[in-house]
This record gives sequence, C-alpha cells and structure tokens, in this order.
Amino acid sequence: MTPRISVDFLDTDRVSVSDRGFTYGDGLFETLRIARGRAPLWPRHAERLQAGCERLRIPPPDPVAVRDEVLRLAEGLDDAVARVTLTRGPGMRGYAPPVSPHPTLVVSVSPLVLDAAASSDGIALRLCTTRLATQPLLAGLKHLNRLEQVMARGEWDSPAIGEGLMLDTDGDLVCATAANLFAVFGGQLMTPPVNRCGVAGVARAEVLAVREVTEARLNPVRLEDADEVFLTSAVRGILPVRVFGTRSWQPGPVTRALQAHWCDIGLPSPSECSKDSDR
Amino acid sequence: MTPRISVDFLDTDRVSVSDRGFTYGDGLFETLRIARGRAPLWPRHAERLQAGCERLRIPPPDPVAVRDEVLRLAEGLDDAVARVTLTRGPGMRGYAPPVSPHPTLVVSVSPLVLDAAASSDGIALRLCTTRLATQPLLAGLKHLNRLEQVMARGEWDSPAIGEGLMLDTDGDLVCATAANLFAVFGGQLMTPPVNRCGVAGVARAEVLAVREVTEARLNPVRLEDADEVFLTSAVRGILPVRVFGTRSWQPGPVTRALQAHWCDIGLPSPSECSKDSDR
Repeated sequence: MTPRISVDFLDTDRVSVSDRGFTYGDGLFETLRIARGRAPLWPRHAERLQAGCERLRIPPPDPVAVRDEVLRLAEGLDDAVARVTLTRGPGMRGYAPPVSPHPTLVVSVSPLVLDAAASSDGIALRLCTTRLATQPLLAGLKHLNRLEQVMARGEWDSPAIGEGLMLDTDGDLVCATAANLFAVFGGQLMTPPVNRCGVAGVARAEVLAVREVTEARLNPVRLEDADEVFLTSAVRGILPVRVFGTRSWQPGPVTRALQAHWCDIGLPSPSECSKDSDR
Repeated sequence: MTPRISVDFLDTDRVSVSDRGFTYGDGLFETLRIARGRAPLWPRHAERLQAGCERLRIPPPDPVAVRDEVLRLAEGLDDAVARVTLTRGPGMRGYAPPVSPHPTLVVSVSPLVLDAAASSDGIALRLCTTRLATQPLLAGLKHLNRLEQVMARGEWDSPAIGEGLMLDTDGDLVCATAANLFAVFGGQLMTPPVNRCGVAGVARAEVLAVREVTEARLNPVRLEDADEVFLTSAVRGILPVRVFGTRSWQPGPVTRALQAHWCDIGLPSPSECSKDSDR
C-alpha cells in the first residue's frame, strides 16, 4: 500500500522545491508507531518536537491538531508507522531564516509489519565506519540533516545485519543508525549520552522514565563485556542484540521486562504479546 | 519575479515528500551565477557536483544536460543566479539508500542584483557562535545538510553585517556562512583548509587555480593582523572585507586584482567593471 500523506492538512504528497526542508534540511521529524488506533508514545514525540522547534526557532504546531491528523490518516490500520515532518516552510534564496516563517507540516502513514524474529531472538549488530560529528547545538534533535545516518546505513546491505552502531569522533559508541543503545553490566542499565551527537530517541526516553539508567560513555570493547545489550526504537520497540563483534547473547531479563512494559503501554511486539494483546 | 523552476526537466516547482532530499537532506546543490547567458564557472560546479555524487554514491547527471537546462531557464536574463539541486530521489521509509536510485534534479533560476557597495567598499564581518562540526566524510561538499549554516546565519539580522565567519570546534576559522575566506599576510595569500568541515567553494577553487595560495589554519586574533581580507562566492564574486573585530581595512591590491580577474572571466562585479564589461 502506498502511504497516506497530507501536507498542511491537505491531501497532497508534494511540497514546493523552495521549502527549506528540501533546500537545507531545515526542519524536524518524528517517526511513531500507531497500534489499534492509538499512539501511546505520542506525548513524548510531541515534547521532543516542541523542544526541537525551540532549539531551531521554528514556530511549533498545535500538538493536538498534529496527533488528530496522524490518527485520521491511520484510520482502519491495525498497526502503522507515521512520519511527522515539520520544516521552516517556504523560503527565499539564502540561509537566513525568514523573519515570519510559515512552517510546513507533512504527515505520512504506512501499514507496519514488524519482524517477529528480531523481537524474539534478537538482531546482529555491526560497527559502522561512518562516525557522528560532535555538534552540541543539534545533538539530541531528530532534525532533517541525516546524511551521516544515510552513509552509515549504506555501509551494509546484508539482511542478516539488523543495525549498525555508530561511534563519535572520540571512538565511543553513541547509538545505532535508527535506534538507541542500552547495555546491562552487573544489573546496572546504561546508555550513552546524546548531548554531543546522536538522537534522543522517544523509546530511549520511555526507558529512562521507567528504569534506573546511568548515562555513561561506552566503547565497543567494553560493550562485548555486557550481560545484555538491546536497542530501542519508537517504531520497532525493544530489540534484543544477539550478536556483536566476537560476542553473542540470549535476550536477558531486563530486555524481556522492557518488552513486557511495551506490551503494557499498548505497543505489542509480535513475539511477546501479540497473541494476548486483547488484554 | 518568481524563480523559473524545473524538476527533472519538467516545468513544475514541486517534489514528492518522499524524496530523500526532503526526508533526509540526502543530496547536493550548486549555486552559480549566469552573466549575459554564460556560466563561466560552470566546469568547476560540474566537477564539484560529480565529486559529491561519488562521495555520496548518487548517480551523477549528464553535466551537459544540466548546463543546458540552467541556460534555458536563464534565457533573457542579463544577470541571474541558478540553483541546481540533485537528490538521491524518491525513497521508501528508512535511511538505507535505494539499491537503484533515481535521482531528482531541480533547477531554479532567479534574476540577480548584486550589491555594488559590497564589491567596491567591502563588507563588515561578524564572528558566529555556531561552530562547524568536524566531519571529514562530508567536508568540502555542498550537500543539503545545512542546519549549521542556517543557525549561524540566524544569529544576526542587521543589514550592516555582510557575513558571519564560522569556527571549527578547535576555534579556527573555516569560512563564512555562504562564502570562503582569504587573507593576505606580507604578500602571502592564504585560506583555511576545508577537509574537516566547511564547503570547498567554486570561487575558492578559481582563486586557488590562478594564484599561489597557502592552505593553513587561521584564528580570529591572527585574522586581525592581515593586510587584506576578502571573501569568495560563486554568486557574489570577490568581496573585500572592510571591518572585522577591532580592525578595519581598505580593499587591497590582491583583492582588486582578483576582482579584475572575475571581470576577465565574464563575471563583472557592479563596482569594478560593469561599465566596461563589453570589452
């Protein structure tokens, strides 16, 4: 099925080439999962979008109107993924942001089919050679400047690889190309900070809200010593890591407990609770 | 006048919201000046676009077809600015580049009116607080991820400021938001390297081809000791710097000689040679 798309609440799938999203990547986006007509993590997406607008000085949209538009386009879909894109809108030539911008809002919704094996057995990770540049002014935001992720994701095409981890310029792990990274050491849950580069994922924020988590630097050698490793994604949920480097793991108790939490909030993973998700 | 625009050689000004230029800034652009139906620096623009395509692994367009489209849209305009945008084209959800991409080519042409006072008397520079992140994989390219420049250019709105200089994370000068930086010290012409961040401007390349230039790091304190300072831009040409920090300058002999060279290649600046540009 082709995606259902609206631009500024109108049923079109086209934008002007003078839109600053197209000319400069001057905007933000959110990618969220809708299950059975609900978007349980929407408040966190709305919060991040608002924070991004403040940082980039883009007038924020009405979050209720955006949520309603997402749900309207998702009507009748059992499981769906929505992308909400907000740009600074049309612009004249030149980098100078318009004094009175008219932001463009694009909502796109597609049916979602999750990978059951990824949730149940875990995924294999690789280490990307493309590194994340240090840019505190943009770190954490889900902005439209994503060439680093594109280049990193272009490093492999084997479907046996589920994700690629990215390092910062110091050689520390930050996140995967499209997910955040967590590891358990001796019962302690930790995740790398995202205040110098990387994206502050919504699923990451949910984990931080419900578990005690230490934000600390982590390098690839130390990651192999972890008791459990998993990735978090607003769309794919909690993904156990099965293989990285010379190490392999079985999904551990922290990973399984967070998958159960994902079921509880209404985002069933296909392996864990899809059969009893009517509860 | 509204710009004259084509997308993939068709007269439209709209692109799909699933174009990777819009979703990820996954593409490149060139901004060039057309004077009297000619684009004298086009070979350098074509070369940079080709190099960018190789680096990002985007199939390059036929440079002759692109040039012809630029000149077609510029027909009848005495002085014009063209923007050529090449993206990886439509994409599915996710960062993974399509195996067989169909790039999108956008050409947009507008009449150009240059600032005569800027060319004759020079411009005032400020120092931006937004810094350029170190990313050697993307450095030099004129790609579509331009949030750093947008944020830097958003730092001032006084028309008395002609440009803002940007530092790298080490505190060295790299370039202006939309121009490259040159300085003369004791007869020696120098410019900062752009192999870790910044854009390798086409006008910068032209200067490097016709003068002996040292590529070396330069910090703001040392810049104030320069005998001459000027910026280079494919559109605006050679711009003398009149004021930076506590220092002021008159346009010097190297600056004037390069402005004369710009006239010679067919890109008259309004102050220097517009009156005798029929030669």
